[in-house]
Amino acid sequence: MANEKQSFKDRLHEIVFEADTPVGKAFDVTLLVFIVLSVLVVMLESVDSIGGQYPEVFYYLEWGITILFTLEYLLRIWLTRKPMKYVFSFYGIVDFLAILPTYLSIFFTGTQYLATIRALRLLRIFRVFKAAKYLSEASTLYNAIMSSGRKITVFLVGVLSAVLIIGSAMYLIEEGEGSGFDSIPHSVYWAIVTVTTVGYGDIAPVTPLGQFLSAILMILGYGVLAVPTGIVSAELVRGELDELPEVSTQACPSCSLEGHDKDAVHCKYCGEKL
Amino acid sequence: MANEKQSFKDRLHEIVFEADTPVGKAFDVTLLVFIVLSVLVVMLESVDSIGGQYPEVFYYLEWGITILFTLEYLLRIWLTRKPMKYVFSFYGIVDFLAILPTYLSIFFTGTQYLATIRALRLLRIFRVFKAAKYLSEASTLYNAIMSSGRKITVFLVGVLSAVLIIGSAMYLIEEGEGSGFDSIPHSVYWAIVTVTTVGYGDIAPVTPLGQFLSAILMILGYGVLAVPTGIVSAELVRGELDELPEVSTQACPSCSLEGHDKDAVHCKYCGEKL
Amino acid sequence: MANEKQSFKDRLHEIVFEADTPVGKAFDVTLLVFIVLSVLVVMLESVDSIGGQYPEVFYYLEWGITILFTLEYLLRIWLTRKPMKYVFSFYGIVDFLAILPTYLSIFFTGTQYLATIRALRLLRIFRVFKAAKYLSEASTLYNAIMSSGRKITVFLVGVLSAVLIIGSAMYLIEEGEGSGFDSIPHSVYWAIVTVTTVGYGDIAPVTPLGQFLSAILMILGYGVLAVPTGIVSAELVRGELDELPEVSTQACPSCSLEGHDKDAVHCKYCGEKL
Amino acid sequence: MANEKQSFKDRLHEIVFEADTPVGKAFDVTLLVFIVLSVLVVMLESVDSIGGQYPEVFYYLEWGITILFTLEYLLRIWLTRKPMKYVFSFYGIVDFLAILPTYLSIFFTGTQYLATIRALRLLRIFRVFKAAKYLSEASTLYNAIMSSGRKITVFLVGVLSAVLIIGSAMYLIEEGEGSGFDSIPHSVYWAIVTVTTVGYGDIAPVTPLGQFLSAILMILGYGVLAVPTGIVSAELVRGELDELPEVSTQACPSCSLEGHDKDAVHCKYCGEKL
Repeated sequence: MANEKQSFKDRLHEIVFEADTPVGKAFDVTLLVFIVLSVLVVMLESVDSIGGQYPEVFYYLEWGITILFTLEYLLRIWLTRKPMKYVFSFYGIVDFLAILPTYLSIFFTGTQYLATIRALRLLRIFRVFKAAKYLSEASTLYNAIMSSGRKITVFLVGVLSAVLIIGSAMYLIEEGEGSGFDSIPHSVYWAIVTVTTVGYGDIAPVTPLGQFLSAILMILGYGVLAVPTGIVSAELVRGELDELPEVSTQACPSCSLEGHDKDAVHCKYCGEKL
Repeated sequence: MANEKQSFKDRLHEIVFEADTPVGKAFDVTLLVFIVLSVLVVMLESVDSIGGQYPEVFYYLEWGITILFTLEYLLRIWLTRKPMKYVFSFYGIVDFLAILPTYLSIFFTGTQYLATIRALRLLRIFRVFKAAKYLSEASTLYNAIMSSGRKITVFLVGVLSAVLIIGSAMYLIEEGEGSGFDSIPHSVYWAIVTVTTVGYGDIAPVTPLGQFLSAILMILGYGVLAVPTGIVSAELVRGELDELPEVSTQACPSCSLEGHDKDAVHCKYCGEKL
Repeated sequence: MANEKQSFKDRLHEIVFEADTPVGKAFDVTLLVFIVLSVLVVMLESVDSIGGQYPEVFYYLEWGITILFTLEYLLRIWLTRKPMKYVFSFYGIVDFLAILPTYLSIFFTGTQYLATIRALRLLRIFRVFKAAKYLSEASTLYNAIMSSGRKITVFLVGVLSAVLIIGSAMYLIEEGEGSGFDSIPHSVYWAIVTVTTVGYGDIAPVTPLGQFLSAILMILGYGVLAVPTGIVSAELVRGELDELPEVSTQACPSCSLEGHDKDAVHCKYCGEKL
Repeated sequence: MANEKQSFKDRLHEIVFEADTPVGKAFDVTLLVFIVLSVLVVMLESVDSIGGQYPEVFYYLEWGITILFTLEYLLRIWLTRKPMKYVFSFYGIVDFLAILPTYLSIFFTGTQYLATIRALRLLRIFRVFKAAKYLSEASTLYNAIMSSGRKITVFLVGVLSAVLIIGSAMYLIEEGEGSGFDSIPHSVYWAIVTVTTVGYGDIAPVTPLGQFLSAILMILGYGVLAVPTGIVSAELVRGELDELPEVSTQACPSCSLEGHDKDAVHCKYCGEKL
């Protein structure tokens, strides 16, 4: 009996956590449909002409989906042998955050809108469609970004310093012109909007000196945009170059030096046969 | 007689479908002129000060060109040995879509404006000017984009999740400030406008917290812009690297040296047959 | 006497056309100062609070500089042995265009503002500071752009088709909403503003469907921005790779086949000694 | 006694200038906290609802921090053996500029806001966290930008010429339309805002010809954005390629084979001494 239950728990584990069997795949696809639905419900609830008209419908839909997700979360904890490992894994945390906002909305009005964090659950989609390949692509991207992390930190500290200094200068130049530069934080916000080439236009310089300085900031931002792109490109290209055949890992039996080419017959340092 | 007609049909096929002979080239150039004209007619028809003044002129022009294109489409079907193959080819579908909107406008007002889809017919231009080279360039681009398809999918899913979550947070922060964040779909639209650095300014944050969060989103979008560029660059660079001659792993049976090119017949060091 | 005059003309040629001697360099630097001044004069003349106050000053300054440049232009023609070659060279055409607008302004009001084309004369700056190196850099850039010309043509035709079709669709969706989409040319203008991530905000969608479609256009433009960057990067990287040591140009004396590595001793096709 | 004082001065030097010892690290971290605080004080002082309410608090905070930084600056001068070397070093100049604005504010109102230049002092952060690695990354970036300096100069001169000419043309086309093109400097400012894809929308064309010309400018800017990115990417990729082991051109005296690494002592094919 214990054995049978165990095997039932095992089969359930296979269905809920894996996507290799037809039933497992069906479970994952159903889950994805519910996630998309739940995100749509939260989004539409906030639209006055839709959510404002039928508040109850959305209230019940929201709670229905949340209870379903809560049951699924508890099921996952029960099914895992080491529950703590799941709870503190990436997916475990995302699954928890996906149900939290609705419960919090009992105490704090509005937090239910944060339930769009459920969108993160959509990352499960990669598990359904040939997960492995996508995960390897994701890790390539992740590695390229991580290994250029220090370069990007240096770059960001530089950009932030520039933005703080130019923002303050613009405040001195444009203050009292009614052009929106009414405090340094606002000016720095404008400098970020400008250097990233977003350019809302809610704050825009009107004095000749201010326009001149912001033209310089734009051209600077223009050249500067090239830097992170160049960093990531070079990192990804390096990934490609690493795949080229390189030095062998063989050590010379006589002098133990390494670094011989793959086609070497004799040690290039002492002349001994490899 | 049948033979003669056949040869006439063959000659016509050469004129309509190929651009090697002077007549075939003249046909293609004439066609391109008509395509440009027809797109201009549709565009100008929508301008009040032009199309609104002489509605009949544009009505007849529009129908004249559509009937010409319809005859050309039927001619192409008649000329092809396997009509279905043409009808369902890329150019066949484009040619059909190019005449569809005008006929639909009999039933639905306004659809005639969709006739700008005729612009796609301009892709025929590559057939007139040394088509092959352009097609090979196009396929290089297409391959680079396709082979980075998975990377870009992973990237887009990540960006969409971020945009949904930040959009919702901004709705909570800015709602009721009259700054345009009046529903989550609107906030998500704003987040996309911001992260892609378009920045219309029709919706822009006004609260300090909202401006702080959107500054983070911009810098994020800034770094993030680097990723697809890096992916495509690396892919195109890899295309260049692949053109370098690759070394085979074969060793010479006489002197055991390696490093021979893939196309080598004799050992390049001792001259022995490989 | 003729000889002396010849040598005087030669010395003058050296001063006017070259920047190697101290006098020649001084001439070029003086010229650059006058070019900058003349561009500033044209710019400030258009500012109401400056040019509108002292119209005569700017009138005489403008004509003074133009007459100086005309004399210099005539001098250059006289000094060159084959005047036609100079007149139709890049610098010759720029020098002529730099004086043309002021003379045209006698007949057409306003053309004097086009005199900012003199800015192109600033390209002479590269002649003063180690011209050769800059010219080689310029030609590297020029080559990279040219050799990716076909790829970029294919890319631009694709982008223009997309912009025409999406622009028309947006006209159908947003027409009559008072959001600026009042004709297809305007909608196409908006689509270009959006896809290039400029985003003025003078025209912006207000309907849910329009906002949805433009969000897709933005993300498309986002990915699409990667393509020309990738093309130019790959082209410049290829320039670097070409500098790597490659195949020798030696042909086999026995079978005349080429493509041997630099370190080959025997022909890799027939085994004959090279 | 002199000896003892010397050793005290030495110990102090170690604390103030280095971050290897725990005390030295604590000093640097405290300093960074004060720098962040001082920048925040300057920023908040400019916000009406905060700095305008408690002007005295901010006045005293500002002066307190400035006096602390002045003492630190004098201490650094006293501790260095060759004070002039510190004073004219990068950090020396930054440290001086960080205290200057507050003293200047006695004579000129408003200059205290320039004290955000203290943000540059944050660059010291790299000294606390494994400075060397970050500095090497920074120098890689610096080298990549410097060695593409000439290319970028050529590129910028080209862009500025284009912006001047198109700006003037737009002034001729749009003047008197009330669309903001009321002088050439304003038009050139607009052209820079457009070509860098910032696009505030404070100045935007309204005439068909103006919109057509600006659409061309945008597509130009689009393609042009690719160039600096390509330059920096190629430069960084070259950095990667340089790290690959380079082959020497030396031939083995015994077997005449080439292709040995630069550091090889013996021929890798026959073992003979090179």
